[in-house]
Amino acid sequence: MKHWLLAAGLLSLAPAASVPQRPPFMLVVHGGAGTIRRQDMTPAQDSAYRATLTQAIRAGYDVLRRGGSSLDAVTAVITVLEDSPLFNAGKGAVLTNAGTVELDAAIMDGAALRAGAVAGVKHIKNPITLARLVMEKSPHVMLAGDGAEAFAKEQGMTLVPQSYFYTERRARELERIKAAEAKQRAHGTVGAVALDQQGRLAAGTSTGGTANKRWGRIGDSPIVGAGTYASDACAVSATGAGEYFIRNVVAHDICARVRYARESLEQAAREVVLEELVAQHGDGGVIALDNDGHFTMPFNTEGMYRGSVGPDGQIVVKIYRDE
Amino acid sequence: MKHWLLAAGLLSLAPAASVPQRPPFMLVVHGGAGTIRRQDMTPAQDSAYRATLTQAIRAGYDVLRRGGSSLDAVTAVITVLEDSPLFNAGKGAVLTNAGTVELDAAIMDGAALRAGAVAGVKHIKNPITLARLVMEKSPHVMLAGDGAEAFAKEQGMTLVPQSYFYTERRARELERIKAAEAKQRAHGTVGAVALDQQGRLAAGTSTGGTANKRWGRIGDSPIVGAGTYASDACAVSATGAGEYFIRNVVAHDICARVRYARESLEQAAREVVLEELVAQHGDGGVIALDNDGHFTMPFNTEGMYRGSVGPDGQIVVKIYRDE
Repeated sequence: MKHWLLAAGLLSLAPAASVPQRPPFMLVVHGGAGTIRRQDMTPAQDSAYRATLTQAIRAGYDVLRRGGSSLDAVTAVITVLEDSPLFNAGKGAVLTNAGTVELDAAIMDGAALRAGAVAGVKHIKNPITLARLVMEKSPHVMLAGDGAEAFAKEQGMTLVPQSYFYTERRARELERIKAAEAKQRAHGTVGAVALDQQGRLAAGTSTGGTANKRWGRIGDSPIVGAGTYASDACAVSATGAGEYFIRNVVAHDICARVRYARESLEQAAREVVLEELVAQHGDGGVIALDNDGHFTMPFNTEGMYRGSVGPDGQIVVKIYRDE
Repeated sequence: MKHWLLAAGLLSLAPAASVPQRPPFMLVVHGGAGTIRRQDMTPAQDSAYRATLTQAIRAGYDVLRRGGSSLDAVTAVITVLEDSPLFNAGKGAVLTNAGTVELDAAIMDGAALRAGAVAGVKHIKNPITLARLVMEKSPHVMLAGDGAEAFAKEQGMTLVPQSYFYTERRARELERIKAAEAKQRAHGTVGAVALDQQGRLAAGTSTGGTANKRWGRIGDSPIVGAGTYASDACAVSATGAGEYFIRNVVAHDICARVRYARESLEQAAREVVLEELVAQHGDGGVIALDNDGHFTMPFNTEGMYRGSVGPDGQIVVKIYRDE
């Protein structure tokens, strides 16, 4: 229709009214925030992180570019990051005090306000997939522990042994943290927010939680409103010291400020991450995206693995604060 | 100072400026919302519910009247309700599909923005006490399952066998629900919000979750922001079909509307419970209290066990919609 009007000279070609070349879509990704400093990274490490982030973003981009859903894009991104030993999620998850892994994940479909989450699962290779099955195939939002794994089996998922998650690096890290009496808090999380060509927002987060954690601790990642949230207007995935993100209901608070206080997404995210959390010493960061494709990635730590891609296909990846 | 000014005739005695007789405090309690109809209750059942609610409210009132904290008041109220076989929490918890109990609870200190929560515990007589220990004695906000019970033991709590929770009534209910193929969703929760004489708000919620639940399902009660939330301005405890309360981040959304949209507490709570949840068929209700002692108790079901008390000591208890 628009093409016909253009051809007939009935529609102007003024930039403001022009038909966009490609429908807008957007993908923003994080791989955890923390004490990530240029001087502590070898060039090989730096490259490895950038390469995996790029690969993850490309997987999500491929979904969005061909008209796929933001849910599929978020799932695709997080699956790549869960399968990498570099990030604290899936394969690369940190170890608990008992030397095991306990994984948390959540996914939320902002358009339909549906969500799924799992907490404390030990034999699930891709917790984001299980979170999505909880959303799509159960009447519940959140399942935990053995029960969540029983549901996974009923859904035909293959469980993996704990040995799948064992990496030399995480074992050494746990020893180091135990020796330092938990002074160092290793955390990290992976997450993605996406807007698809149908204008639907989605958010997802996956994590191994805090290294050396005990007592079945659940962090903010699988908690809808804290580490993960999406509505029809706003999507957020968080990473950091989860307890602060739970108490401040960070992901929902950012979206509530946009909805009720008419703050811009950037104002809202900065206020929460750089003011409120900083005042409480709550380390971390967020990625946030609105339904116009605007996004922001504030963090109050030395670095955050992060990146984005839009319709032009230019994948941007950053790690340090000064990038 | 005010007394001196009054004596010197420098301050008027107009009611608006008068010094209140007693510092304000307020306590609001619920015992679950659902299909609670006058015609389905015997006079003996009606009296038993009212008596236990009154006893619980009196326990909280005694704390607040003598200057105790809102946290202690919330804990006292919920402990009485957990110890009663009438309500779906503690002793009276509904049974899971496996015929066991799995209990969830959370407590939040609005003044300090601290919170504690437990999910899926099976041997804890008073989950609200364990939630409080998580808040006060652990670096975490939320603990689940066996890990949470290990923490309870380390804190010196005595674990009870599952047989403690067994009641003939819940066993029959589970059989009935299984026979009806889960058509009837029995839920229910207990909760309290309190404002103490120091102006500090607190909220707490405790539940057995949904009868016949499976797969380690976690409902909204232990999720900060969903079923339980308190800030320095607003405290909420919810009851109902938990999945809807999680997706809508109900407790935090009510407080966010008050904070950012300048809605009154009543407007905010009614909008969320009577408009947004109703549109989604999300059954339930909330109790909400602000730091002026204003409270509201909207629900979209046929009844909600509920009550309140203020400085005058008049305990009000209601069950049905037409009260």
